[in-house]
This record gives sequence, C-alpha cells and structure tokens, in this order.
Amino acid sequence: MIITKPTLLLDRSKFEKNVDNMSQKAEENKVIFRPHFKTHQSLKLAEYFKKKGIDKITVSSITMAEYFASGGWKDITIAFPFNILEIQKVNEMLDQKIKINLLVESLETMTFITRHVKKTCDIYIKIDTGNHRTGIPNDEKSTIQENISLIESSQHKFKGFIVHAGHTYDAGNFDEICSINSKTINNLSELKKLNGAKNALISVGDTPSCSLARDFEGIDEIRPGNFVFYDIMQAKIGSCDFDQIAVSVACPVVAKHYDRNEIVVYCGAVHLSKDYIMHESEKCYGFCVEYNNDMTWHNPSAYTFLRKLSQEHGIIKSTRNVLDHTKIGDIIGVIPVHSCLTADNYDYYRELNGNKIPKMRSL
Amino acid sequence: MIITKPTLLLDRSKFEKNVDNMSQKAEENKVIFRPHFKTHQSLKLAEYFKKKGIDKITVSSITMAEYFASGGWKDITIAFPFNILEIQKVNEMLDQKIKINLLVESLETMTFITRHVKKTCDIYIKIDTGNHRTGIPNDEKSTIQENISLIESSQHKFKGFIVHAGHTYDAGNFDEICSINSKTINNLSELKKLNGAKNALISVGDTPSCSLARDFEGIDEIRPGNFVFYDIMQAKIGSCDFDQIAVSVACPVVAKHYDRNEIVVYCGAVHLSKDYIMHESEKCYGFCVEYNNDMTWHNPSAYTFLRKLSQEHGIIKSTRNVLDHTKIGDIIGVIPVHSCLTADNYDYYRELNGNKIPKMRSL
Repeated sequence: MIITKPTLLLDRSKFEKNVDNMSQKAEENKVIFRPHFKTHQSLKLAEYFKKKGIDKITVSSITMAEYFASGGWKDITIAFPFNILEIQKVNEMLDQKIKINLLVESLETMTFITRHVKKTCDIYIKIDTGNHRTGIPNDEKSTIQENISLIESSQHKFKGFIVHAGHTYDAGNFDEICSINSKTINNLSELKKLNGAKNALISVGDTPSCSLARDFEGIDEIRPGNFVFYDIMQAKIGSCDFDQIAVSVACPVVAKHYDRNEIVVYCGAVHLSKDYIMHESEKCYGFCVEYNNDMTWHNPSAYTFLRKLSQEHGIIKSTRNVLDHTKIGDIIGVIPVHSCLTADNYDYYRELNGNKIPKMRSL
Repeated sequence: MIITKPTLLLDRSKFEKNVDNMSQKAEENKVIFRPHFKTHQSLKLAEYFKKKGIDKITVSSITMAEYFASGGWKDITIAFPFNILEIQKVNEMLDQKIKINLLVESLETMTFITRHVKKTCDIYIKIDTGNHRTGIPNDEKSTIQENISLIESSQHKFKGFIVHAGHTYDAGNFDEICSINSKTINNLSELKKLNGAKNALISVGDTPSCSLARDFEGIDEIRPGNFVFYDIMQAKIGSCDFDQIAVSVACPVVAKHYDRNEIVVYCGAVHLSKDYIMHESEKCYGFCVEYNNDMTWHNPSAYTFLRKLSQEHGIIKSTRNVLDHTKIGDIIGVIPVHSCLTADNYDYYRELNGNKIPKMRSL
C-alpha cells in the first residue's frame, strides 16, 4: 500500500477480536448485545456483527439510523434524546417496517411522540445515574413515573430504562469503574418498583464498564461502541491494552527540528480531532507508533507523542534517537486519543492490505 | 429555511464585508493579497475574491491546491512544508500550467525538489520567528543561506521568506500582537542581507496581525485565512468584533435540565470541533446566539455557552430565564471557537436564505 497523505488504518484482526470478546462476554452473561455503531459507522464492518448473529443495534442520530437501515438493519435504537424536528424521517423508516426504538427524557418530547409518531415504537426512558449529560436523575421517581404512565397510555410500548454511565471515563481505575457500574445497576433496579416497570429492560452502554465488569447481574442489554477500536483514553483508564487498539492514522513526515526534538507530520486536527490526555504535564493528542512492513504496528513509546495540533500540522515531541532514524517522507503512525472522533472525520478505512472500507460520516 | 439537524450557516454579507475590509487594507498598503483558502474551502465563495481582482491564493495541502486548480485558480502557494510523497500530483498540476509555489524548510526537501519537480517553481523558505511550529529559526542564518544557494543553483526560483506568526494567537491584546508583528518584520528584513536575498519577497500570514496592524512597512505579501469568518478566538484576542463573525452552527434543542440550568442540543464535537477557550473558569466550546426570523443572529450572551461536547451532544450552560423561553425543538445558534476547524467538518454552507454553497473537505 502506498500512503501519501494522512490515512486511517484499520487492523481488521484486532477489530474482529474486540468484537469476538465483547459478543462472547454478552453471550456468557446472557445479556442482549446491541452494539453502538457510532464508532465505526460502516455497513461493511457491520457485516462482521451480522455474521455473529447480532441483529439489534444502537446509533446516535436519525441520519445514522437511515444509513444502517439502508443496509438491511431492522432493529435500531436511537440512543439520543429524540430530535422532534426529524419526525418525518422516523415515520418513513417505520413505514418501511424498520423497528425504531426511541429514547425520551421529558413529557414534552413524549407528548410529541404520542401525537406524531404514527406506528408503534418501543420507548426507552433515559435515566441519569451520575453522568449529568442527559436523562432524568434516577431519584426523580415521580417524573419517571409520569413518563412511564404517558407511554403506557399511548399506542407505544415502554421498553425500559437506558443509561450511559459516561462518568466511568473520569474513573481512575478498575475498582472505581466497577463501583460506578454497580451503583448504576442498583439505581436502575430500584426503578423497576414503579408502576408498569416490573418488566422494564435495563440497558447500559459505556465501553469501560462493559469491558471491565465481570458480572452483569441486573443488566438486560449492553450497548458499548468504542470497544471495536478502543483508543488511548480507554487504555489509560484500563479498559484495554495498547495492543487491542485497532486503528491508527498513518502520517507523512514533512520536517524535523533537532533543536527541540520535534518532528512535523502532515496530520492535524482535521485528521485526528482535538481530544487530548495529559501526559508528562502537557497535552498529548496521540502516541506515535512505527509500522512494520506489513503495516502492523508496535506498541507506542511514551516518549514520542503529538504535543500540538493545528488544522493540518501535527507536532511530535520525540527523542534525538528517534529523530536520527526518521527521514522526511517516512510514515509515522498515530494512535488516536479518542477513536470515535478520529474515525468520524473519514469516508473510509484502509485495511493493512490496502483494501478500502467505506463508511458514513455523521454530517 | 427548515433546519432539522446541525447546520453550518453563513451570513454572506458579513463574509463579503470581511473580504472587502482585508482587500482594501492590502490595496491601501500596497501589499500583495494572497488569501489563505483553508478556512472557507469553497470554490463558490472563492468567486467573490475573483470578482475583486484577486488571482493569487494560499492553500495548506496539495489536495486543496488540486481542488482550487480545478476551479480555474492558477497561482497557488502551498503554505505547508512540502510533502515529498505527493510529488506526482504537483508535477501534474505544473503540467497543466498551474503556477505552484512551494515552501521548504530543509536542504533534504529542497534537494528532493531539485531532483523531482520537473518544471520551474517559485520556492519560499519557511522562517520561524517565534511560533516554533515549523520553519528555520530566523537566527540560523547559515542554514537559510545554504537553502537559498541550493535553490539558486537549481532550475527553481527563490521567491522569498514566508512566516506564520501564529504566536499572535497567544497574545493578550492589541499592543502585544503589534509588537510580535513588528519583531517578525524586523527579523525577516534582516535576512534580505543574505546572498541572493536582496529582492526576497516577505510574506506574512496570521489573521490577528493582518487584522490589527496599521502599518505594513517591510511586508510584500499577506496571507490571512480565518478573517473571512472570524470566530470567538479572534474576538477574544481583539482581531474582530462579535458582529463580524460570519458563521454559526444552528442546533436543535433536544432536552432541558432545570436543576443545573442546562440545555442539551444536537450539536457535538463532530459538528463543531473540540477547540475551546476558558470562560468563567471552565471550558467554553462556543457562545450561543438567538436567531431572528431572517436567520441573522444577535450578539451572544456571556451566560449561555457550550460547556461540554461529546460526539453528537452539546451541553449548554445557561440561565433560568433562557431555559424558560426555550422549547424542545427550538433552534439555538452556536458561534464557533475556531471557525476553520468547524467549517472543515461540513460539505456545504447554508446562506441565511437557505441557499446551499458546496465546499471541499481536507480529507
């Protein structure tokens, strides 16, 4: 494969292994596996899930639901507070016999759905167990009850409680993640005591919990997304090891600066995203890797990382030794900090053998 | 215009006024105006420059050069350390009689150009006057001299010294920006004493300096890009006023949270980019605006801003008063922190009358 500009590489064997692991875990724990497809956004990669017998998926927008529906997926949860402005598209998918499951977190939106969504939908109520992004706080039981009652009195079906315990991303370690996870489950189980909620499905979704939890007691459905590729953020909190990360961005070297041990690559914010972790007291936008002849890559060195990103420039902080054996025109790999945002930039992946895998973009 | 999902709006009258101002400034100061097209990335918007008699442009990648060449632009400076891996594309454009001006900052790259670029090019030497992203430090006179001599001994032409004084972005105020600017010019003027550099063109490029400088003495060419739209970062350092910012992202409201005065919008990192400024001691990914009936917008309030972004969610911190008059399904505008990165996400702009303006993307 000849690489001449920033290219998103996919190590398919790692991707498949990640999918195998998570689907096996779901099977062993007897939970429904409804993977979130917002990370890979590719019908072609979705086929691997289909082969494993998975037929229920999660997406984060109506645009994404339409894309996967066009590829034959027929049971789609839109895990985003329902955007009432896109009602027409939802009705169109329902007309095409796609099962669309919606998420609500207010009576206002649920009232709208009751009036305007023409065919029966399964409705999840979004619960906030501490992430404070969206959802009804789990202790606001009367609001949750009102929503259940409104759903039950409509033509729609109350499916269950859905949560994204995204605060696991701020966790420092395994124990903290597991503790957030078990608190989440306790809080959700409590809600089953509400009227009409006895058989509510409990759906959880973050990659750290799903990767690390040993016990799924009390959970009916898992919806991780990022686990297909993982990334530095996940490695940092311990959800994965570096050698499980399935994507890297291959970048041409365009300049070297010995005075400050820096390498300039053609790979900027538009190729990676500006998500960062703190590393050696400075921002790190990605760790660098070397490619083997077959384009597999080694684990990254802690001393060669992207310290600065502008629109198309990436500035790598490195060592004299690395500078000495790096030439202008070489290709350096960058492991993304947040693979969802990195992948979203691209229209396709390149497998290590050069094969092109098309994908959608959120926009 | 019916907006149902995150949409990049362009106020064309502001855009045109920004272009008018900068081109008038260039004319009055008798400097060559070679605008950087990496911000708008649109052949359609480029037409407005053509109408004003501008025929020289700057781009940041060979891909972008090809795009604008396809639209009839024939004098293009690629203001990025030359990526030797894309040599073939450069030779193809030269074969099509496009004048391509290249930027070098090392003998290694210049030697490659000497050997592999088949037709004569104008070559700029990239100088670092304090930004420390790319370029030869202005005090490394012997390295600069070696590069000039190598260019002069080849079939190519030494055009001059090019600098991006991006450290103006870290400046606190007008005086600081002007002081960086005059130091930059002094440092570059010094270099004209080198052999073969007497007639070197001095080319500078950052929007803060070009917006604020009252005097262009010693400068031959300016290459600002961001000024076409401006953004919060520019408003913060004083390069523009809020009412000069020509783009906003229109976002559907999907949820409200009274307990923490937050509004959730369908508008995430993939629609905005994760560049932020610090505001009220927290990260701010954009200030919010209200739209008038004709989709023009008011100046933003300091108390309604994006405090958090995930892939497709935006969390707006606001006030009780704003929450009270905001309904689910309303459209809220977000003024981007960094308009170059925001615009790069999209395939098109919408003018306020709904007219669609196509653009390229860097990838």
